[in-house]
Amino acid sequence: MKTLAQTSVRPTSSLNLLSQHEIDGVTNANDDTFQLFRRCALAVLNTGNDCDDYSTFKAALDAFEIHIVPEPRGIRLDITNAPASAFVNNRMIRGIEEHLFSALRDIVYTHHKMSMGGRFDFDSGPGITDAVFRISRNAGVVKPNTSPKLVVCWGGHAVSRIEYEYAKSVGFELGLRGLNIATGCGTGAMKGPMKGAVIGHGKQQIRDGRYVGISEPGIIASESPNPTVNELVILPDIEKRLEAFVRLSHGIIVFPGGAGTAEEVLYLLGILMQPGNTTLPFPLIFAAPQESADYFRGLDAFICHTLGEAARQHYEIIVGSPEQVANSMYKGIESVTRHRRKHQQSYAFNWELMIPMDFQQPFKPTHKNMAGLKLNRSQSAHALAADLRRAFSAIVAGNVKADGIAEVKKHGPFQLSGDAEIAASIDNLLRGFVDQGRMKLNGQYTPCYEVVQADTST
Amino acid sequence: MKTLAQTSVRPTSSLNLLSQHEIDGVTNANDDTFQLFRRCALAVLNTGNDCDDYSTFKAALDAFEIHIVPEPRGIRLDITNAPASAFVNNRMIRGIEEHLFSALRDIVYTHHKMSMGGRFDFDSGPGITDAVFRISRNAGVVKPNTSPKLVVCWGGHAVSRIEYEYAKSVGFELGLRGLNIATGCGTGAMKGPMKGAVIGHGKQQIRDGRYVGISEPGIIASESPNPTVNELVILPDIEKRLEAFVRLSHGIIVFPGGAGTAEEVLYLLGILMQPGNTTLPFPLIFAAPQESADYFRGLDAFICHTLGEAARQHYEIIVGSPEQVANSMYKGIESVTRHRRKHQQSYAFNWELMIPMDFQQPFKPTHKNMAGLKLNRSQSAHALAADLRRAFSAIVAGNVKADGIAEVKKHGPFQLSGDAEIAASIDNLLRGFVDQGRMKLNGQYTPCYEVVQADTST
Amino acid sequence: MKTLAQTSVRPTSSLNLLSQHEIDGVTNANDDTFQLFRRCALAVLNTGNDCDDYSTFKAALDAFEIHIVPEPRGIRLDITNAPASAFVNNRMIRGIEEHLFSALRDIVYTHHKMSMGGRFDFDSGPGITDAVFRISRNAGVVKPNTSPKLVVCWGGHAVSRIEYEYAKSVGFELGLRGLNIATGCGTGAMKGPMKGAVIGHGKQQIRDGRYVGISEPGIIASESPNPTVNELVILPDIEKRLEAFVRLSHGIIVFPGGAGTAEEVLYLLGILMQPGNTTLPFPLIFAAPQESADYFRGLDAFICHTLGEAARQHYEIIVGSPEQVANSMYKGIESVTRHRRKHQQSYAFNWELMIPMDFQQPFKPTHKNMAGLKLNRSQSAHALAADLRRAFSAIVAGNVKADGIAEVKKHGPFQLSGDAEIAASIDNLLRGFVDQGRMKLNGQYTPCYEVVQADTST
Amino acid sequence: MKTLAQTSVRPTSSLNLLSQHEIDGVTNANDDTFQLFRRCALAVLNTGNDCDDYSTFKAALDAFEIHIVPEPRGIRLDITNAPASAFVNNRMIRGIEEHLFSALRDIVYTHHKMSMGGRFDFDSGPGITDAVFRISRNAGVVKPNTSPKLVVCWGGHAVSRIEYEYAKSVGFELGLRGLNIATGCGTGAMKGPMKGAVIGHGKQQIRDGRYVGISEPGIIASESPNPTVNELVILPDIEKRLEAFVRLSHGIIVFPGGAGTAEEVLYLLGILMQPGNTTLPFPLIFAAPQESADYFRGLDAFICHTLGEAARQHYEIIVGSPEQVANSMYKGIESVTRHRRKHQQSYAFNWELMIPMDFQQPFKPTHKNMAGLKLNRSQSAHALAADLRRAFSAIVAGNVKADGIAEVKKHGPFQLSGDAEIAASIDNLLRGFVDQGRMKLNGQYTPCYEVVQADTST
Repeated sequence: MKTLAQTSVRPTSSLNLLSQHEIDGVTNANDDTFQLFRRCALAVLNTGNDCDDYSTFKAALDAFEIHIVPEPRGIRLDITNAPASAFVNNRMIRGIEEHLFSALRDIVYTHHKMSMGGRFDFDSGPGITDAVFRISRNAGVVKPNTSPKLVVCWGGHAVSRIEYEYAKSVGFELGLRGLNIATGCGTGAMKGPMKGAVIGHGKQQIRDGRYVGISEPGIIASESPNPTVNELVILPDIEKRLEAFVRLSHGIIVFPGGAGTAEEVLYLLGILMQPGNTTLPFPLIFAAPQESADYFRGLDAFICHTLGEAARQHYEIIVGSPEQVANSMYKGIESVTRHRRKHQQSYAFNWELMIPMDFQQPFKPTHKNMAGLKLNRSQSAHALAADLRRAFSAIVAGNVKADGIAEVKKHGPFQLSGDAEIAASIDNLLRGFVDQGRMKLNGQYTPCYEVVQADTST
Repeated sequence: MKTLAQTSVRPTSSLNLLSQHEIDGVTNANDDTFQLFRRCALAVLNTGNDCDDYSTFKAALDAFEIHIVPEPRGIRLDITNAPASAFVNNRMIRGIEEHLFSALRDIVYTHHKMSMGGRFDFDSGPGITDAVFRISRNAGVVKPNTSPKLVVCWGGHAVSRIEYEYAKSVGFELGLRGLNIATGCGTGAMKGPMKGAVIGHGKQQIRDGRYVGISEPGIIASESPNPTVNELVILPDIEKRLEAFVRLSHGIIVFPGGAGTAEEVLYLLGILMQPGNTTLPFPLIFAAPQESADYFRGLDAFICHTLGEAARQHYEIIVGSPEQVANSMYKGIESVTRHRRKHQQSYAFNWELMIPMDFQQPFKPTHKNMAGLKLNRSQSAHALAADLRRAFSAIVAGNVKADGIAEVKKHGPFQLSGDAEIAASIDNLLRGFVDQGRMKLNGQYTPCYEVVQADTST
Repeated sequence: MKTLAQTSVRPTSSLNLLSQHEIDGVTNANDDTFQLFRRCALAVLNTGNDCDDYSTFKAALDAFEIHIVPEPRGIRLDITNAPASAFVNNRMIRGIEEHLFSALRDIVYTHHKMSMGGRFDFDSGPGITDAVFRISRNAGVVKPNTSPKLVVCWGGHAVSRIEYEYAKSVGFELGLRGLNIATGCGTGAMKGPMKGAVIGHGKQQIRDGRYVGISEPGIIASESPNPTVNELVILPDIEKRLEAFVRLSHGIIVFPGGAGTAEEVLYLLGILMQPGNTTLPFPLIFAAPQESADYFRGLDAFICHTLGEAARQHYEIIVGSPEQVANSMYKGIESVTRHRRKHQQSYAFNWELMIPMDFQQPFKPTHKNMAGLKLNRSQSAHALAADLRRAFSAIVAGNVKADGIAEVKKHGPFQLSGDAEIAASIDNLLRGFVDQGRMKLNGQYTPCYEVVQADTST
Repeated sequence: MKTLAQTSVRPTSSLNLLSQHEIDGVTNANDDTFQLFRRCALAVLNTGNDCDDYSTFKAALDAFEIHIVPEPRGIRLDITNAPASAFVNNRMIRGIEEHLFSALRDIVYTHHKMSMGGRFDFDSGPGITDAVFRISRNAGVVKPNTSPKLVVCWGGHAVSRIEYEYAKSVGFELGLRGLNIATGCGTGAMKGPMKGAVIGHGKQQIRDGRYVGISEPGIIASESPNPTVNELVILPDIEKRLEAFVRLSHGIIVFPGGAGTAEEVLYLLGILMQPGNTTLPFPLIFAAPQESADYFRGLDAFICHTLGEAARQHYEIIVGSPEQVANSMYKGIESVTRHRRKHQQSYAFNWELMIPMDFQQPFKPTHKNMAGLKLNRSQSAHALAADLRRAFSAIVAGNVKADGIAEVKKHGPFQLSGDAEIAASIDNLLRGFVDQGRMKLNGQYTPCYEVVQADTST
């Protein structure tokens, strides 16, 4: 990778002044917090370089240096061996520069609150929600005085050209309607809608369009924020990131993806099916081009079969017609606006939605945890959704994540305890993904799990 | 064409308040000025619809009504049967709305100055230049207090996907370098660079990127401004439009096109080769993707053969590498900046360039005028360039424009009086365009001209 | 007067780019237009220095030099021997700098339109109105998209401390209500309301308050615009300036002044009493502190006696209570807004008001012209108002203006032909002004006019 | 006091969105925090009403109600019985409205940090400084990216017309030089400079002038922020407020005041005379009109006599000439800028200045504490300054503050233990103040203290 020996940047707007205390909290070079920042900084600078290969990233990281230097008007970052792709004519691309300072801001803020005992209360549901809100607010991502118009787009980051162009067209139509975009800030279905929206906003002469990236330290290296992102927030972990998506957005569009996308859908349905949430308006659209209609056909069948017909009331499937997707989302958001106005609920943050603790707390994909899941209909649909999400989370890990693969290698396939029908459904869905080329595979697909029929009489 | 029965729009910013006098000058419905505005208004609204077919446009025009209504805070336009494509959810796309009022502004201004005897002096060179400046200034397209960074892009409007994507990539790289784009505001090579620049500016967090459209009433119907255009100016005729391109820009990139593009290149070279202009820095790049390298190879050979080796110092040919195109233009503009600073010349308008009257005044493609051209080397290269431009202008007309075709039908092919070599060069070039599919043809290509060997001894 | 040997300034925003033509039109140093600009420029720079003494100004003018220098980003002014009071730490006060370029802008514009035969039509009423509109629009003083809120304040420029503080308090209350101020831009009753409004706007956190100065070349030297003025327009003569006041404002407050103020009041009443204008809402308030109640008592009696009771419906007299003045004006402007909205009349410029030609054309104070006035009740009230205005205009001239004094010295007092009662009224009013110390006198007051009883039977 | 029965306001910009947690933290009506906010809110609304009389304020407070109501776009305040003076035409003055939300913001922020154990560390010097910084930053009063230009003005709030006008003139000259003003935000010497600066900024067309008010809950009721204040921050107590003054400012001007002003001067000199601080540039000017030259003559003599000649190097005394005051401050700030640039010190917050703990921690004016002061030269000058400040603080309290007066009534005069000379100096200074009418007295002046000659040999 081509790098730039030496460069310096100064923040423009996204960074408030830091106290000496706060700078000290990050700058100790051996400190975890500093290393976290260094990793995120490189990830941000690495945009556009494919980094599925961690070893490449690791090599770059070893050579990469960054220093925080106090200055009269604020601070300066001195950087060694940054990827050349982050620069044009030896000047850092402004969008990337801002991400760098956003990363610093969020890490300083979160570190400051976490390091000093008890400031963030991660042991209670309201405490976690409060932290998600305050990190987002500090990042300027919670906006007062604007009407609802933030659409979250989910979907795969390695998608076909057709799917990419489709996501872009949907983004364009959303932009034409004045809607803004938030994504996980990688490529594919996350980049397409933003680029489309930029053009749509341009045609509407909207100069303050929002392209929000919501990330977390574990994922940012593999999904570097595209410089189009003009608001970036880094939450401390994946569960808080998911909660930020759900509470900041006024509607969600899901594009085709892989098992990870299925996991996100199960997370969201599990929440929307909670008693108390079911009557809250929450526009959710599954959208795919004609050529990819199979993806949602399979997912829809799976959902219906496992969570029941009732789940279907929470989403709409649209095949083709980006215009129809945008119109439907626009109408959905109008009903969100009416609801929040009527009930005096904030436009900027969805406080109303109840998110149970088991969706807020991380799930570790171990054999023991997997064995504890109850994949049967003896429990409520939303509880089953929670366990299904965990199962998919582990399957993703067992297939592609270093620690998950190691776990499976050592102890054999995960043992899923569930009834036969649900097991068959999972199998069907995943084999469909394999057929559609949505699973990253080396050679033959070998499932990393086995289903053990459980005694459902208990 | 789907239309909207009834709609009203109000100007936002691009229209100054009109005096009653000025409104009266346009609103008389039988008046030429009003009909001109009505035609331009429909053209602006018609964006995205292919209108090479004039009869479709004519039918739309018959049904189309527009009225200027004075209001307390400014004026209002009442519109009947506007193309539905100009609207999203029954609201006019903001970019289009602004074009509508830009058209009104320029027509009011030009009409006002022209209708009242002697205000614009179109009979002298400085008078024409003054008018071009003042119309542009009134349109807000001449910007004080900015450094040079406006790049004009020329090229065909019906180009291949590869050429379109290439132009877009060049625009993206220009945008990344903070450069702005001006074009003739149609599709193809005119739309591509703008869309690319929007994304490039987005990455640099540039919110005041300029996408300038420079048009004239005769061309606007077939080249509706793309809504991305955020500054539109309508000059009164094609020659003033060409002068506006040349004086407003700080550099020009030519993409592949047809005979029309060749004509523009000859116009520009004719000016740059004028004694007095030859030492002025004026970055001019011919840029094409690898697949279209032939276009400029042919054009370059033709130029060299007719105008001589000396012409080549005025342009650079780059094949592929959008990055290299942008870097070269960036450097060229740096030298323009240095030159203007040193000589206390305006950044905003190139007053220095001498444009001879025969480039400022329109050429009518008649047999008599064509017979009068001297296509031989007995005259200076820049004078030959002027006559070659006229020849190409007539050839374009004889091939595709209604009046030109009629003329040829009635009187037979134009008789070009020139020496044999130049005639062969013209023939070669045009046959090359035919082979590359760049000439709009019905059936076999039949040249609309014949070369008569002239007595070059005179 | 302390001066600065050498200094240069560049325009910030108020000056559009000039064409070479336009610069040439002003820069010829022997040209009337250039001398006009030079005089205005010194006047603008001279703010704060008392210049009732013309000889001081003349001496300063002789030493003062100014040059317009073209530059890459616009133009530059090189200045020699500017008054030191226009500078702080050797940098020109920004407000003054902007006035300098405003003066240049208006003189260039007006010169350009006038010098080229027929552009402004000063021979017809609508032509004059059109010119007033276009000069104001070019100066940015006609604002689109704002609701009515511009209050013109008239009154003496040499007033007592109490009257000054009162005018300031009124301005403060107007500012608190979000209203803006326009004046003739000198000191006294013209400066007070602006300074008050600045504080009022500050308390309302209004950052775009307007402080409009409306001047003309003949008066600007003696009434230099206060730097608080952030919009300055220079009309070509006094009548166009008065028309600009009346058409740009949404209401007028008159503070105590001298004979000149009486003249302005007669001008306005003459217009408001025109048939056709009488039903148009036009808030007009005569406001004085308790201590100066006499001024309007006398003026009111005079008006009632000469123009009749009907004149009284056009104004309201308020003594004391700045708050009441502001509230009354606020309500008056509300009815202006309602009226204009209902009748689709522009908020920005009062096109509706009919101003007869005899109010638009200048009156020369000669014995012949004075003898021709008909100061009797045989004519309509508004025609009488017009002649009374002329009489006061001449009396002001005969008392204080160089040419008027010379005229009287040479030919004896003006002969006013009027009926006895009206003559007595005039005498009464003026003697009252003398008693109140409102007439600039050297020694004993000797009237510069005599009343000749006319044959009113004609 | 006239009040408005019922009114509602919504924040514009100064309030970020609150979390439910934060709203809950304030809205419990019996809570101390809520009562604190209610008191501050009334004080803010009470601007312009003289409230030296606490009983009037108390009566108003009993009737006053305020409720925080969550709304879709933020929050709303419902208010009952607000002082009518805060409104114009039944709409709250915008400046006051913003102060209301500033008060809420600061109280929420400080409460949140303080209530949750350990967030602010008030037990260490750096901890207190960190808290002062963070409260100020959260209030937006610490500005990044601006060069040093904030001048703090201190002085009496009940001053003569001449002193008020003088302070205003100084403010005007500071404003003309682009400098901004911070004060304790009451009337008199705190209001004058702001009003002057508003006019000065107006002349320089500066639209982003800063008028910073720095207050604390104990003082805000008697010194309501003038609505001109466009940035308000409320620190938790008087010591943190003083530290905010010193660390945020780039220079301080002291106008004549009473014993309180003397106390502030002693605070500042005590800090500036600390070893380590003495070489830091810190422009400090004592400025008075000719008529009040005595005030600083007396103070200067006292300082010199008690703290020694060395103290004099830290301040400059200017009598008259507002222009000279502004020029001297301007130059002083230039050297501050140079110093901070050279040493890479923040422009926005003076981290460098060492403030000893005994200046950061509150002093309670009890007989015991007073007896403990060492008013003799056995200690260093800066330590003596600290004890002198405490003595003056207690004298102010014993003279005018409710609890101080009660204390003296109960236990008799405070016993000041000091050497004879210093005791005489204090006496002299205070009697001078009495002679100048600077002490609020009922009848004869009876000192609330006695000097007991201490055994200095210890």
